[in-house]
Amino acid sequence: MPQDKHINRRIVLASRPHGAPCSTNFRMETEHRPVPSAGQVLLRTVWLSLDPYMRGRMNDAPSYVAPLQINEVISAGTVAVVEQSCHDDYQPGDWVVSQNGWQDFALSDGKGLFRLSGPVLNHPSWALGLLGMTGFTAYMGLLDIGNPQPGETVVVAAATGAVGSIVGQIAKLKGCYVVGIAGGSEKCRYAEDVLGFDRCIDHHSTDLAGSLKRYCHDGIDVYFESVGGKVFDAILPLMNTQGRIPVCGLIAHYNRTDAASGPDQLPQFQSAILRKRLRVQGFIINQDYGHRFDEFFKQMSQWVAENRFTFPEDITDGLDNAPETFTGMLAGKNFGKVLIKVAGDHP
Amino acid sequence: MPQDKHINRRIVLASRPHGAPCSTNFRMETEHRPVPSAGQVLLRTVWLSLDPYMRGRMNDAPSYVAPLQINEVISAGTVAVVEQSCHDDYQPGDWVVSQNGWQDFALSDGKGLFRLSGPVLNHPSWALGLLGMTGFTAYMGLLDIGNPQPGETVVVAAATGAVGSIVGQIAKLKGCYVVGIAGGSEKCRYAEDVLGFDRCIDHHSTDLAGSLKRYCHDGIDVYFESVGGKVFDAILPLMNTQGRIPVCGLIAHYNRTDAASGPDQLPQFQSAILRKRLRVQGFIINQDYGHRFDEFFKQMSQWVAENRFTFPEDITDGLDNAPETFTGMLAGKNFGKVLIKVAGDHP
Repeated sequence: MPQDKHINRRIVLASRPHGAPCSTNFRMETEHRPVPSAGQVLLRTVWLSLDPYMRGRMNDAPSYVAPLQINEVISAGTVAVVEQSCHDDYQPGDWVVSQNGWQDFALSDGKGLFRLSGPVLNHPSWALGLLGMTGFTAYMGLLDIGNPQPGETVVVAAATGAVGSIVGQIAKLKGCYVVGIAGGSEKCRYAEDVLGFDRCIDHHSTDLAGSLKRYCHDGIDVYFESVGGKVFDAILPLMNTQGRIPVCGLIAHYNRTDAASGPDQLPQFQSAILRKRLRVQGFIINQDYGHRFDEFFKQMSQWVAENRFTFPEDITDGLDNAPETFTGMLAGKNFGKVLIKVAGDHP
Repeated sequence: MPQDKHINRRIVLASRPHGAPCSTNFRMETEHRPVPSAGQVLLRTVWLSLDPYMRGRMNDAPSYVAPLQINEVISAGTVAVVEQSCHDDYQPGDWVVSQNGWQDFALSDGKGLFRLSGPVLNHPSWALGLLGMTGFTAYMGLLDIGNPQPGETVVVAAATGAVGSIVGQIAKLKGCYVVGIAGGSEKCRYAEDVLGFDRCIDHHSTDLAGSLKRYCHDGIDVYFESVGGKVFDAILPLMNTQGRIPVCGLIAHYNRTDAASGPDQLPQFQSAILRKRLRVQGFIINQDYGHRFDEFFKQMSQWVAENRFTFPEDITDGLDNAPETFTGMLAGKNFGKVLIKVAGDHP
């Protein structure tokens, strides 16, 4: 269903998911397109970013961002075009990164908008991915916490996911031996043949621990964690002394509803942290590294200009497909950065 | 039993402990005092340091130091006097820190010896404690990993233990609000009244979590971990965003023989690391920070000269009491740094 110039479609949280989200957790509403007041711009959503961390916001539990309220528009990063402006700094036709959420139109007073200019205008969706929050997450988590050295072994979970695909490529640029983990042979082939991972292991395979051990013959120095669960269990015994584990997500946990049954693996993890002198550190990109965005953007723009990166995008047309696409992403059905193309008439 | 000039008593590992060590795991042997060859010194043990990490070396399991072998002398840091010298750099009567282990005499080629000079000669046992490995552990773990800022809340496990007592006092010097955890009301009173902790909580009390919450009204920014187990379980929910957890030991785990039963608390810990953006880092003082000993020694010597520190020592006379004292320490019976005075005729 295409955008209508006069109508704002908004997808709200109808009820909180229990486990995997389903269609009844979401509700599409329509209203008249809002009208900007003095000092405001009206933004039209072109691209919508779907990210696993959003699942956490749908629970009514304390997390690193406040929970969504019932009947609230699902929040999300967006690339948008200024449709009308009553703000001195913006003109109709300007492109920005904004937080419109799952809707066609949104008003903004300009706070938090990031104006797009230069080469990224040739590929505006990259402002949400390679050159946006996704790339920034990969860059800071790997380089600042992971601190990979040439020749070290870096293992990347969700290797063909949005963040993982970039982590692996940065690690290769830094001279590391890079092993990915992905779901299915097609993704693994892509990670090796297109993204340049040295190896990629299918976590559906019967012997994940054995494959990891075989491919990580010198152990693991950096494990970029975005998954948790059984992948982590297989990684831990292979971590090297003074290994680093940046934790940017735990997608295997997000839909869990039951307390994990025993045995209790916490003491084993604590013991590994001590014996192997591991550094395990969680981070939330904007809160921890917001002040370093320019540094990232400059370096990544240069790498992009030099054609150093392949960035898979998994694009679905139409705002109304956002709920199903989101649920599929949590189940690992995506291939690369998950985007909804909301405005069909724009690049 | 006092030292005999002509006999070397040595306590060896007779069998590996299963759970808490008992007397049958140790055996005292005697032999003639060894004779130094050219390039060697003969060292007489004066002070013997007992440290919880030694328990790990008694297991036949990979850890951060190689396991002790059956019939091997139990290893330990010692303060010793040069008894005879065939080494150009040492004279009889020189004091050194050495690794004699649980025995009266040992030979050394000079490698790894640290010569004592200056004010520490007034209190040689401090070379194993306040001004030695113990103080170095407290200093680097707290300052380099914990990075405490004025006004932050620092919680210290084993507050009247060797390391914990120093951690708390450094944290106070840095302007922090410092809460200790110790076993029993006497230790808690000592931590507050003598060591200067703002508060100290008895972990035998029925409501550890409640007391912690009451005293850490602004949450916990740094938790100095040397215990694990139920203390850690009570700490985790109170950790603040961007909190730091230096892990220097896990004494509650050392004597465990059974796998921990469920529920599995690992996912909850991982989730806390992510949501709260925690940094959890294990360290082994000499391996990770050996190159920074001088920096520590200089600063701590200055603080000691200024009388900034109280350092409780828990001294037992006689090498033959080492096994029982060691076992007692693992059960929390000690009060401060555990030392065996091996040579009764020396300071």
